Amino acid sequence: MTEQPRPREIAAIDMGSNSFHMVVARIVGQSLQIISRHKQRVHLASGLDEHHNLDQAAIQRGLSCLAMFAERLQGFEPENVRIAATYTLRQSQNAAVFLKRAESILPYPIEIIPGTEEARLIFLGVAHTQPDAGKKLVVDIGGGSTELVIGEGFNTKLAYSKHMGCVSYNKYFFPKGKISSKNMATAQLAAQQKLESIATKYRKKGWQMAIGSSGTIKAIKEVLIGRGHSDGVITPKRLALLTEDILKFKQSDDLDFVGLSDDRKPVFAAGVAILSAVFKSLDIDEMKFSDGALREGLLYEMEERFRHSDIRSRTATAMAEQYNVDIEQAQRVKQTAEMLYGQIEPQPGMTKAELAPLLSWGALLHEVGLSISYPGFHRHSAYLLRYSTMPGFNLEQQTVLATLVRYQRKSLKLEEMPELSIYKRKHLYPLIRTLRLAVTLNGQRSDEPLPTITVKADKEEWQVNLPEGWEESNRLLAADLLQEQAYWRKAGWELKLE
Amino acid sequence: MTEQPRPREIAAIDMGSNSFHMVVARIVGQSLQIISRHKQRVHLASGLDEHHNLDQAAIQRGLSCLAMFAERLQGFEPENVRIAATYTLRQSQNAAVFLKRAESILPYPIEIIPGTEEARLIFLGVAHTQPDAGKKLVVDIGGGSTELVIGEGFNTKLAYSKHMGCVSYNKYFFPKGKISSKNMATAQLAAQQKLESIATKYRKKGWQMAIGSSGTIKAIKEVLIGRGHSDGVITPKRLALLTEDILKFKQSDDLDFVGLSDDRKPVFAAGVAILSAVFKSLDIDEMKFSDGALREGLLYEMEERFRHSDIRSRTATAMAEQYNVDIEQAQRVKQTAEMLYGQIEPQPGMTKAELAPLLSWGALLHEVGLSISYPGFHRHSAYLLRYSTMPGFNLEQQTVLATLVRYQRKSLKLEEMPELSIYKRKHLYPLIRTLRLAVTLNGQRSDEPLPTITVKADKEEWQVNLPEGWEESNRLLAADLLQEQAYWRKAGWELKLE
Repeated sequence: MTEQPRPREIAAIDMGSNSFHMVVARIVGQSLQIISRHKQRVHLASGLDEHHNLDQAAIQRGLSCLAMFAERLQGFEPENVRIAATYTLRQSQNAAVFLKRAESILPYPIEIIPGTEEARLIFLGVAHTQPDAGKKLVVDIGGGSTELVIGEGFNTKLAYSKHMGCVSYNKYFFPKGKISSKNMATAQLAAQQKLESIATKYRKKGWQMAIGSSGTIKAIKEVLIGRGHSDGVITPKRLALLTEDILKFKQSDDLDFVGLSDDRKPVFAAGVAILSAVFKSLDIDEMKFSDGALREGLLYEMEERFRHSDIRSRTATAMAEQYNVDIEQAQRVKQTAEMLYGQIEPQPGMTKAELAPLLSWGALLHEVGLSISYPGFHRHSAYLLRYSTMPGFNLEQQTVLATLVRYQRKSLKLEEMPELSIYKRKHLYPLIRTLRLAVTLNGQRSDEPLPTITVKADKEEWQVNLPEGWEESNRLLAADLLQEQAYWRKAGWELKLE
Repeated sequence: MTEQPRPREIAAIDMGSNSFHMVVARIVGQSLQIISRHKQRVHLASGLDEHHNLDQAAIQRGLSCLAMFAERLQGFEPENVRIAATYTLRQSQNAAVFLKRAESILPYPIEIIPGTEEARLIFLGVAHTQPDAGKKLVVDIGGGSTELVIGEGFNTKLAYSKHMGCVSYNKYFFPKGKISSKNMATAQLAAQQKLESIATKYRKKGWQMAIGSSGTIKAIKEVLIGRGHSDGVITPKRLALLTEDILKFKQSDDLDFVGLSDDRKPVFAAGVAILSAVFKSLDIDEMKFSDGALREGLLYEMEERFRHSDIRSRTATAMAEQYNVDIEQAQRVKQTAEMLYGQIEPQPGMTKAELAPLLSWGALLHEVGLSISYPGFHRHSAYLLRYSTMPGFNLEQQTVLATLVRYQRKSLKLEEMPELSIYKRKHLYPLIRTLRLAVTLNGQRSDEPLPTITVKADKEEWQVNLPEGWEESNRLLAADLLQEQAYWRKAGWELKLE
C-alpha cells in the first residue's frame, strides 16, 4: 500500500485597517478545506496621523500580530502563502518602514493591493462561499475603505473602493466617541457624497441579491439578531430603528446591544452611518451577510492559479488590445526576451518562476504608451502600467512592470527608479537588460526570425554572442547594439558583443 | 456704387530651427492669394548648448528677425496672425525667456507646436499646393527635426517627427565643417537608426508619390538641376553620385556646386546624409519637391477655420470616443459650463471667443482619465490631455486643457499649476471655477435638467444663486456645494451660495 501524499496547505493573511486575519486551508482534491482562522484587532487605521504616517504604537501592534501568525506558518513554502495589505498601508507614507520590519518577522512577501483589486478579491471570496446564481452586489465596509462590487459568477462587472471606513469615520465624525444626531447625520451625508458619483451607475447595472461581508456588517447583522430579527437580514427600516436606538446613547462606549462586543463599540455608530448611506444611495431593499471576505478571495485565487490560467495573463492581453498594441512586434520581443532570460541565472532571493512572468508581461505591454504619443512613449507605457486598474496585479507588481517598460529604451536614468520592497534592484536589473536587448534585437520589426543568440551574465557584465559574420549583413542592428552598449556603460553596466 | 470691402489679409510665421519664414496672403472669395514671403536665416538650433539652453546670440538673432516681421504686420488683428515655433524652441529649456521678450516685439501669441502637429501642418501645406490625387509621402528635413507624413487628400494617415535635422547633424557628425567618408557614413547610419522603428510601418502603408518640402530638400533639388537633371527629381542614384562628389571636398565651406548658396553650404552634407538615409530606410524610388511647407499649412488652416468646422472639435470628439467617456455626462457638464461661463466677463488680454472653446473641450474630455482608473482620475485625464497626439492643438493649449481637468475636483493645489506663456493664470482661474461648478452641479449624473442658476463673478469672489427652497430638496448637492466652498476658501477664493 503506497503512502498518500500529504495534502498541500495554503494560507492567506489580510492586513486590514481594523483587524488582521489569517486563514489556513488544505487543498483536498478539487476543493479547499478551511482548517483554521485567526483574527487580531490591531486598529492600524487609528495610528495614521494627519500626514499619513503610521505611528510607532500602531506599527508595533501590527508586527506583534504578524509574529503570532508567523508561528503558525512555520515550514510553509513561499508559494503557499499570500499576504495582502489594504487601505491603511496603501495610504501610509511610511509603509516601507513597516514592510521592512515585517520582512524579518514573516519571511513572505507582503503585497499592498489597490482598492479595486481588493474589491475584486472580496467578491471572489463571497462568490465562492455564496454560490447562488444571479447578479450580486457585494458591500464590504472596512476600517479605512469601503468596497462595492457588482458581479456574476466569479467575474466582477463594477468595482470601486471608496475612502471611507468605520475607523476613519469614527475618528472624524464621532470625536472622542461622542454620539449625537448631528454627528450621525453629518457622517451619513458625507458617506452619501462619497457614493454620489457612482450611485447611478450601480443602480442602472442592478443586482439580484445584495450581500455584506466583513466585520462591520457582521456586527450590524448580529445586533439585529439580538433585537429579535432572527433571519439576520438588514433592511432600511431595521437600520433606521437601530439608528434611533443608537442615538439614545451619548457615548460609544456606553452602547448596549445584545450581540455587540466591547471592541466593536467604538466604531459601531460610524459603521451604521456608512451602511445607511450605502442603502440610501444604492436604494437597497435588503442585504444578507456572507462569511466570505478578502482572505477567502486570496485563498481561492491561490488555489485557482494552480489549476487554471492566470488571471494576470487575461488582464495583460486585454490591456494590449485596449491600447492597440502591435501584437506581432510584442510577441517577437516577448519570445526573444524569454529566449535570452532562459540562459540567465536569477539573483538569490527570488525564483525564476516569480520573475519570468513579469518579464513576459512587460514585453507584451512595452508599447502600450504608443497609443498616447510616440515621443517618450516608454514613459507613457510606464504611466499606464503604474496607474491602470489591472485585475490580478498588486501595486508592487504594477510598479515593477512600469519600471521595466520605462527603461526599455533610451538612456538608463537609474536614479529615477522607484524603491520597491519585495523586488530588489538586483532582481530588476537583469529583467531590464533582457527586455532592452530583446527590444534592440527586434528594432527592425521584421518577420524574419533572429539567428541563435547566446548570452552570458556575470553580475553587471553581460556577454552577447552573435553568429559569425552576421554583423556585416546587419549593419543597422550592429550600430544599434553599439548605441545600447554606450547606454549600458553610462549606467555602469557592461555589454560585451562578440 | 458701394465700396467693395477690403479683402481680409492673414499672415503665418514659421519659426524654424534654421530660418524664420513669414507668408502673408489675402482671402479672395474661396481662395488664398499669397501676396508676400519673407525669410531670414537665424540658425537658432546652432545656439542650443548641451544643456538645451538657447544662448543670447541666438535669442538676439531670433528677436531681430521678429522685429522685422512685426513692421510688416502692423495693423493686423490677432485673429489674422498665426505663429508657430518648432523643434529648437520645443527643446530649449529657456524657451520662456525667448517668448517673453518676443511678446514685447510682436504682439501676437507664439505657439510651440508638437512634432506630430508640425508634420500634419506641413502635409496640409503640401497637399494644398500639390493637389494631385493619391496617397502622398511628404518628407521635410528641417534644421532640428525631420517630419515624415503619409496622407491622402488633406488627411494625414501616419505622421512622425524625428529628432534629426541638418543643423544638429552638421554640428554632431561634421564638426568644424570637416567632410570625410567616415563622417558621412556615420551620419547616414545614425539617421537610419532614427528611422528604424517606423520604417516598416511606412513601407507597409505605401504611397503613390513622394514629395520633399522646405530648404534642405529644395537645396538638393537645385544642386541636381545645376548638375544637369533639369526635372529636379531626386533618385537614389543621383543622391549617391552627389554624395561621391561631396566627398571630394574636405571642408563644407569649400563645397562648390552650381545652385548651392553660400549660407546653405555648412549644412548641405548633413542634409544629404539624412535624405539618403530616408531614401534607404523607406525604399524611395523618386522624390519631387513642393513649395508648400509648414507656413502654408498654418495659413490654409487659418483660412479653413473660418469656413469649416474646427479640426480641434474632431480631435476632441475622437478622443472622447477612444477613452469611452460617458458622453451624456460630459454633455451635461459641458452645457452647464457654457451656461455659467456665458454670464461671466472675461479677463482682459484674451477674448471669450478664444477661451470658451477650451472650456467646452475641457468639459467634454474631463473624464478621459477614468479609462485608466478611478482613484485620482483627474490626474490621469490631465496626463492624457498633456501628452496625447491631438491634431489641431498646440502644446500650450494642451497644457491648458490638462490644467483645467487636473483641477476639476478635489483640493486646489494651485502651486502645482504649470507656468504658461500665452494664457495667464487670470484667464485660467475663471475657466477652472466654471468647470468645477459644472462638475459639482452635475455630480448626481441625473437626466433631470438643472434649474436656472445665475452666477456673478467679481475677481476671486463668485456668487452663485440657486432657486429659492431648492436646497431643502437637494441636500446632497447642497453638501457638495459647501464642500466646494471649503476647497475654494483654501485656495484664497470665495464662493458665495445664495
